[in-house]
Amino acid sequence: LYLKKTSSTPEYAGRKNTFHVALLGYGYWGINILRNLVELPQVSQISVCDINIQRLNTVKKMFPEIFVDTNYRDMLTDPDVDAVCIATPSSSHFELCKFALLQNKHVFVEKPFTSNTQEAAELMELAQSRGLIISVDHTFLYNAAVHKIKEYIDTGQTGKVAYIDCTRVNLGIYQPDVNVLWDLASHDLSIIHFLIEEHPTHIRAIGKFNLEHQRVDMAYLFLYFSSGLLVQVNCSWASPVKIRQIMLGGREKMIIYDDIEPTHKLRVYDYSRQPVDEEQRNKMLVDYRLGDITIPKFSTQEPLKAAIEDFLSCVQTGNTPISDSASARQIVYWLEKAEFSLKNNGELVAL
Amino acid sequence: LYLKKTSSTPEYAGRKNTFHVALLGYGYWGINILRNLVELPQVSQISVCDINIQRLNTVKKMFPEIFVDTNYRDMLTDPDVDAVCIATPSSSHFELCKFALLQNKHVFVEKPFTSNTQEAAELMELAQSRGLIISVDHTFLYNAAVHKIKEYIDTGQTGKVAYIDCTRVNLGIYQPDVNVLWDLASHDLSIIHFLIEEHPTHIRAIGKFNLEHQRVDMAYLFLYFSSGLLVQVNCSWASPVKIRQIMLGGREKMIIYDDIEPTHKLRVYDYSRQPVDEEQRNKMLVDYRLGDITIPKFSTQEPLKAAIEDFLSCVQTGNTPISDSASARQIVYWLEKAEFSLKNNGELVAL
Amino acid sequence: LYLKKTSSTPEYAGRKNTFHVALLGYGYWGINILRNLVELPQVSQISVCDINIQRLNTVKKMFPEIFVDTNYRDMLTDPDVDAVCIATPSSSHFELCKFALLQNKHVFVEKPFTSNTQEAAELMELAQSRGLIISVDHTFLYNAAVHKIKEYIDTGQTGKVAYIDCTRVNLGIYQPDVNVLWDLASHDLSIIHFLIEEHPTHIRAIGKFNLEHQRVDMAYLFLYFSSGLLVQVNCSWASPVKIRQIMLGGREKMIIYDDIEPTHKLRVYDYSRQPVDEEQRNKMLVDYRLGDITIPKFSTQEPLKAAIEDFLSCVQTGNTPISDSASARQIVYWLEKAEFSLKNNGELVAL
Amino acid sequence: LYLKKTSSTPEYAGRKNTFHVALLGYGYWGINILRNLVELPQVSQISVCDINIQRLNTVKKMFPEIFVDTNYRDMLTDPDVDAVCIATPSSSHFELCKFALLQNKHVFVEKPFTSNTQEAAELMELAQSRGLIISVDHTFLYNAAVHKIKEYIDTGQTGKVAYIDCTRVNLGIYQPDVNVLWDLASHDLSIIHFLIEEHPTHIRAIGKFNLEHQRVDMAYLFLYFSSGLLVQVNCSWASPVKIRQIMLGGREKMIIYDDIEPTHKLRVYDYSRQPVDEEQRNKMLVDYRLGDITIPKFSTQEPLKAAIEDFLSCVQTGNTPISDSASARQIVYWLEKAEFSLKNNGELVAL
Repeated sequence: LYLKKTSSTPEYAGRKNTFHVALLGYGYWGINILRNLVELPQVSQISVCDINIQRLNTVKKMFPEIFVDTNYRDMLTDPDVDAVCIATPSSSHFELCKFALLQNKHVFVEKPFTSNTQEAAELMELAQSRGLIISVDHTFLYNAAVHKIKEYIDTGQTGKVAYIDCTRVNLGIYQPDVNVLWDLASHDLSIIHFLIEEHPTHIRAIGKFNLEHQRVDMAYLFLYFSSGLLVQVNCSWASPVKIRQIMLGGREKMIIYDDIEPTHKLRVYDYSRQPVDEEQRNKMLVDYRLGDITIPKFSTQEPLKAAIEDFLSCVQTGNTPISDSASARQIVYWLEKAEFSLKNNGELVAL
Repeated sequence: LYLKKTSSTPEYAGRKNTFHVALLGYGYWGINILRNLVELPQVSQISVCDINIQRLNTVKKMFPEIFVDTNYRDMLTDPDVDAVCIATPSSSHFELCKFALLQNKHVFVEKPFTSNTQEAAELMELAQSRGLIISVDHTFLYNAAVHKIKEYIDTGQTGKVAYIDCTRVNLGIYQPDVNVLWDLASHDLSIIHFLIEEHPTHIRAIGKFNLEHQRVDMAYLFLYFSSGLLVQVNCSWASPVKIRQIMLGGREKMIIYDDIEPTHKLRVYDYSRQPVDEEQRNKMLVDYRLGDITIPKFSTQEPLKAAIEDFLSCVQTGNTPISDSASARQIVYWLEKAEFSLKNNGELVAL
Repeated sequence: LYLKKTSSTPEYAGRKNTFHVALLGYGYWGINILRNLVELPQVSQISVCDINIQRLNTVKKMFPEIFVDTNYRDMLTDPDVDAVCIATPSSSHFELCKFALLQNKHVFVEKPFTSNTQEAAELMELAQSRGLIISVDHTFLYNAAVHKIKEYIDTGQTGKVAYIDCTRVNLGIYQPDVNVLWDLASHDLSIIHFLIEEHPTHIRAIGKFNLEHQRVDMAYLFLYFSSGLLVQVNCSWASPVKIRQIMLGGREKMIIYDDIEPTHKLRVYDYSRQPVDEEQRNKMLVDYRLGDITIPKFSTQEPLKAAIEDFLSCVQTGNTPISDSASARQIVYWLEKAEFSLKNNGELVAL
Repeated sequence: LYLKKTSSTPEYAGRKNTFHVALLGYGYWGINILRNLVELPQVSQISVCDINIQRLNTVKKMFPEIFVDTNYRDMLTDPDVDAVCIATPSSSHFELCKFALLQNKHVFVEKPFTSNTQEAAELMELAQSRGLIISVDHTFLYNAAVHKIKEYIDTGQTGKVAYIDCTRVNLGIYQPDVNVLWDLASHDLSIIHFLIEEHPTHIRAIGKFNLEHQRVDMAYLFLYFSSGLLVQVNCSWASPVKIRQIMLGGREKMIIYDDIEPTHKLRVYDYSRQPVDEEQRNKMLVDYRLGDITIPKFSTQEPLKAAIEDFLSCVQTGNTPISDSASARQIVYWLEKAEFSLKNNGELVAL
């Protein structure tokens, strides 16, 4: 019955130019999603769902024309709704995505996609069978700095990549239902998956359980590759300072991506000239430099905005989003295996 | 026979106020040792040995009164020599230390002490049986910043230490006869041994072998403690930037020690106030801060100078140096076990 | 006639709890004002005026319930409008403020208040005679870091302030109708006026005229005080880097306020211990430090939000806003005199 | 009589390959000069003069072969001495230089050259009439970073230079006999004289007298050029932080030279692309950037060593040193005029 309503079939949405988008969850990230939705011309109507009525009142105060509701089921069964943005705690992603897909809604969901690969697979099948789009909000896949790094790698400028060393640490924003791997390392894993074609063969994670918070709040995750590439992701909720840094070492160039830096996010170190004699080598003991450093200029745009635009564009065209469910499933798979390693005392796990 | 020569018995040296010190090795670090020796009033005569005659000529040009020689055996059999500073490649430490001790010379030797614990034990026994002092040049044990951190821990200001995260990376000064663990991680291990009373129960090391240089040039070393303390040392010769940082997380305070900073080496973060409600928690998403930060002032002195002074003072008094052979042996033990883990694919090794 | 309409007399507005606010100008800063207005519960209705219809359409798309108009006269003669936020180019401030006040609207206007002190005085008189509030958007007066500095001064912790050195430079955002003094130095002048009770006796400005842009784009402004306090404001649109720094030197403490720093905005240097002998003096040649440094934690809030809230609160209570027209007039007076000095080759001008 | 002694005529020195160098003053900078002298192969003998016997004992302890004396007259009348390095307080420079030149010694003297231009002229004449070399230790003229900047200017890469903004501030190393202009600004003036061919037409200095130290300890110095170039030098002994920065704005590129930075001393900002429309202009409000930034690699050497080598090379060849007395005299002239402006309330002074 439901499927017969023209306004809600994916085919129809595909022909539409503007969409009615429902947002589930108006917390920290939901606020950012809504701010973008209201500015996008391709969004004709917005509905917001949250269990907290006070938050809904805040929305209503600012945007009286937005529909608000505490019941997501009512909202998602509305045939006028074309697409759903899910910004609720991770543990609810599977249930909400599934319900939305069953109502023939396209889905944009916060990372991590699901709690395990089985759930991810089920959602992917469901979406495929109904011709629906799933995009997972791995925002770094829409970050111009990450795309610039990929350009350096793909054009051969870096040479063969030998290592990637990621640090993503800050102070104590404990997530209610996931540990630090799923919260922070998931960002780096999505970036590595995007940058590096090769698939890792093994994974390992070493972590520290915080008794007070009953959660792993520091972890070191390693990815091993046949080519010799070694990746470490150092993530923590227990660092006094916020660091968002990726160091990538290629044979010809090394890149440091510091996401905290307002204007110098990328520094590219020319490493092509090796010291040839002892005098040069001793000089390096003084300045530790070989060649020029470049801080490339690239265009800046809010990644979240680009992510939502890509999602809505794919809803219209049927194309696959940059951050699609297949890559998101892969991240979940790695996290799942990393969690296994973590619980088994840092055991090396084959992928 | 030899022992009868009063000028060379340790007892005699112990009564002397000024000493004849021989320096073996006039490379990068030997230059720094000599610069300090010539300034110390308790050093009455210096001899320098190196196999490179050009280097000896440089010494002779600057300091005509210094004795120079290419043969260390001749130099160390000279009964006038009281003590020896060994600044040669690591692989020669055992042989040179043993020879010096057999000639009844007190020994100040570069880190790492020896290549394995057996050698370290043999040298320790030899020194003990002859009443000789061995001091190993773990310079950070004479660093005022490290002592300040110890003060914060020992006075209970940090609260229980939950983690220590060390980063010691720079570009490509490949050592001729050791890998990056023995070269760089040894510094952090000596600091941890000094700061933390508790002994680790397990160790693990994950590294990357550089085919071009035929040496492990990146490694991640972990120390596990019964109390829950987790230590990581990230060391690398393949980083485009030089970083010398130790982050220490206690329950009450966190400390960042950045040894590159000229004047702000230590930053102490007050962490005693935890966010109590969601509003505070959300505010932390903005500024990631809980309390004041203090950058303590402490006296500065060249650690190497303090190390040599401590050594010579102990030669005179018979006291044990801060950086004694027992702690140096422990560092060698950890490095030995880390190396084993490294070669066994990051296996967890009991200590 | 107009005054008889109860809904528009200031007395009425004073009794109201919620207000209809008109925003004139939807450019860079107007966007920020609107974002805050829509979130404030004391704002019941918003009208937005801009001569650019495309911008008004953007507003209408996001907030259909907002009234939009290209004619400010029609908007301001609407008796339902209680207060006006003016975010148009500086040269229009006087005319728009005057018109608004004549319609009995309370006024919140961008800095600089007016183009000269005569205009400022006329507006102040007009507002006073009608019991209307004028608040000028000197946002730094609502900045928690500035208030923290004032606390350090007023509690005597800094000791007597000897100098203030301000640097406010960035790359080339040329304002259409003012030079760099009125655009950038005005911020520092408002901060100095807020921090320092004493009035300067003389002013001087040295600048550089940019031929291409036909505008002074670099200037050095000096304020002289009887107490000996010397203030410099270095402002520029021609700097390759953005710097927002205020260095304040007191006899006991010095403060550096770096507004670019995300979390370390204030650093407080203890300067109370002076070097007493030559040895200490020589040590300073090495580390240039005397005492501890503290990075105080203070609450953070968007200053613009606090400014608008203060304005609306004063509309209701009749109190004087922190950033009132009297202090804004003083800033205009200083800028006027600085401009005179600038045009007279850096002549020293009495205030 | 004296001149007949072959060993002391400048002609003879000119034919010599190695020199006997006398060092007057073994304070902070004298220590650095001696350290370099002992390493230079062209220095065959060193004599050190200081009124402090303890210092001379320190020298003698380290370098027994060095001659030491507390009487500079005896030392400089020794016909074996070829050249003199003067590292005494500024007020003694003229007397010591004159005495040395009268004994036919070549002179390397600390900056500032003399206390006024008349003294400088007298010394220059004296040296010229006797064929002697004077080099003034403006070390930055031997700094690779400064030469790299000159290369950028001279090859036209920067385009026309519009401004130079120098900051040279630190905490409280009060000089005994000069104010902050002569101590710190002299460095920047020597750099500007080296970089810019054009001569300034006017100078101005604004400063602050420190009552406690009875000396001007903060000053802002301005140089005006016909081409429109404006230079500011901000120098202070009352800054809580040490800053050594020169910002140079050209039409095509801007350069920031941060001498504190260990490895990133120069940053070169490409400024050739101007924002063309309002969208680009608004984007600049976000990232304040136009083009790539380059951090060029250049060779590093201790500038003082290069300065002494240049001096001794000129003694031998009769060439003019990079840092010759003519340019040093010009710096003294500017400082003299700046001092006049300072004392006349910041009056603009023609050069």
